[in-house]
Amino acid sequence: MTTEPLTSPQAAPAGVRAAVRGVPAYPFTPLDVPTKLDQNENPYDFPEALKAEALRRMAARPWNRYPDLHADELRRRIAAFEGWDERGVVVTPGSNVLIKLLTELAGISQTVLTVSPTFSVYTLEAQLLGATLVQVPLNADFSLPVDALKAELKRHQPGVLYITQPHAPTGHVDADAAIRDLVDAAGDWVVVLDEAYHQYSRTDHKDLVLAGGNRLSLRTFSKAWGLAGLRLGYALATPELAGQLQKLVPAFNVSTLAQAALEVALEQPQYVQERVQEGVRERDRVLAALADHPTCRALPSQANFFLLRTPDAAAAYTHLLSEGIVVRRQDSLPGLTGCLRVAIGTPAENDALLAALADLT
Amino acid sequence: MTTEPLTSPQAAPAGVRAAVRGVPAYPFTPLDVPTKLDQNENPYDFPEALKAEALRRMAARPWNRYPDLHADELRRRIAAFEGWDERGVVVTPGSNVLIKLLTELAGISQTVLTVSPTFSVYTLEAQLLGATLVQVPLNADFSLPVDALKAELKRHQPGVLYITQPHAPTGHVDADAAIRDLVDAAGDWVVVLDEAYHQYSRTDHKDLVLAGGNRLSLRTFSKAWGLAGLRLGYALATPELAGQLQKLVPAFNVSTLAQAALEVALEQPQYVQERVQEGVRERDRVLAALADHPTCRALPSQANFFLLRTPDAAAAYTHLLSEGIVVRRQDSLPGLTGCLRVAIGTPAENDALLAALADLT
Repeated sequence: MTTEPLTSPQAAPAGVRAAVRGVPAYPFTPLDVPTKLDQNENPYDFPEALKAEALRRMAARPWNRYPDLHADELRRRIAAFEGWDERGVVVTPGSNVLIKLLTELAGISQTVLTVSPTFSVYTLEAQLLGATLVQVPLNADFSLPVDALKAELKRHQPGVLYITQPHAPTGHVDADAAIRDLVDAAGDWVVVLDEAYHQYSRTDHKDLVLAGGNRLSLRTFSKAWGLAGLRLGYALATPELAGQLQKLVPAFNVSTLAQAALEVALEQPQYVQERVQEGVRERDRVLAALADHPTCRALPSQANFFLLRTPDAAAAYTHLLSEGIVVRRQDSLPGLTGCLRVAIGTPAENDALLAALADLT
Repeated sequence: MTTEPLTSPQAAPAGVRAAVRGVPAYPFTPLDVPTKLDQNENPYDFPEALKAEALRRMAARPWNRYPDLHADELRRRIAAFEGWDERGVVVTPGSNVLIKLLTELAGISQTVLTVSPTFSVYTLEAQLLGATLVQVPLNADFSLPVDALKAELKRHQPGVLYITQPHAPTGHVDADAAIRDLVDAAGDWVVVLDEAYHQYSRTDHKDLVLAGGNRLSLRTFSKAWGLAGLRLGYALATPELAGQLQKLVPAFNVSTLAQAALEVALEQPQYVQERVQEGVRERDRVLAALADHPTCRALPSQANFFLLRTPDAAAAYTHLLSEGIVVRRQDSLPGLTGCLRVAIGTPAENDALLAALADLT
């Protein structure tokens, strides 16, 4: 499936590019619901003692001064945590910002290649910024269509290739050999390995990034680290590629507040392991509990969320909402008929989910 | 002066667009110097009581949850403060991010028109994102070259026109009639009135924005509000234009921390007036004190900074640095031979500046 840059005319305001006019506004209605399982967040707040220490450091720093231009101290600590060259670390307020910048780096007037269904920001930025967007359907078991992707890599001028591991919104993990096969075929393409959920799948593709000059791994503090509210994502790349990407990062991008808080998190990262262990345990418990469900089927996942295939996604969504649980509908995505995406919450939240789903017969 | 999108080839990494490769990395060496007059910051931190209240609110909010998608509460408070329709307010982490997004909105493969010298982010984003960049030299007295700009508006396909009031890096303010004349000639161009320093000049072009459907005013919390470390800029526009711009804003763009702190600032904005009054008083005192300088000439300014024309910018810069004062060299910019850009500091900092400059004979 190839989508040329949008050019649909649409009234108003003058000067706005057709590609922007052609994209609908993001429809979003915030819901005040007790159990939020719709954004794949960590169900636990930053540990209280760390929060207090972060607030102490924020209080001590001047707010009237611009923050460190490239957040060098934070980048150094991420590099130490990841065992990476600090010149190869790029930080932005959320990894969705990195996806915009990568589209600017290698997508504008070039090609963005990914699968379908996929994380919506890859395709949205490609459309907004005037890339030719090429999407290949996932295999029926949600594995990567490696041969079809390799064919598209050959067919188009290079640009950006997005691979998500574990994949979103399926939670599927591909065999290392398949990913290596695909990445090795990418030649002059910039290859993005989006590893937002990698702690939950215990996968790590840093070695693949090191093995080539135009590959990156994207990571985030919004999931396993439980700091979605602070907005911090980062890329690991070679220093050369990171230097090119850094040119596109707006100066003073990461606030003094976020820098202080994330330095504290990186000093005391032990809590992340404990929470990931509980998240994995809870995910496997929920999936096992749903194995005998009379009408719904929970699809296997290696992330902190899973797809639930229901006979009627609208009815299931509404029922859960009436029980105080919000999830994400995915049933309009290709191959995901009837599917809801459900995040793993606390044990009590997961119990509430299972009880609500038991009514769904 | 017209600069086509850069296409200079340059080795690697593969896939990176030529426009990005062609732009040099931002050279920046942080200096640990007692008197920082190089970034046009407010010399005072956020008032202590407000900082404490902001930290209390940050402590009370969950950090593991994504922030409000479009920072609606913050946008409402900005709208109330500005007397603006809240649907016409767009917030981002710094107004430099808005400049990137405006280039995405109406600059990519179109035209960016501005003057020279100007704020470097306008021209940098134009080059990086593949706009045709057109710059017209300022008049010798730093006023806007209205007729020449009107000619370029006619000569090129529409895109983005940037007007900065007060202008940076000169501090010059143009006559309302000149700005209105230019803006009215802009037709289908998106017109950006960057008013980052408008509190110091007591100018306000909101009425011009309201009078047309494709005009915006950019404002920031980094200058008069003294909150550069928190990263918050905003645009005032019509709801229709704001809706188009909002499509380009990455979701969850403003952190939970920044939202909490800025809500506090907007509840108690009285401190800003007091600081602006001192800043204006100090600026006029410094400019008056330099009127008789034997070798340097302070150029008139309506902002919280001014240009100092020296016989030898490198020597003056080094001398000030040796006295513990850092300013910004601007002497390589067109029309600014010998010029340093100097921010207004606290009265004590300004005294130190004047003493150090007295040595410069």
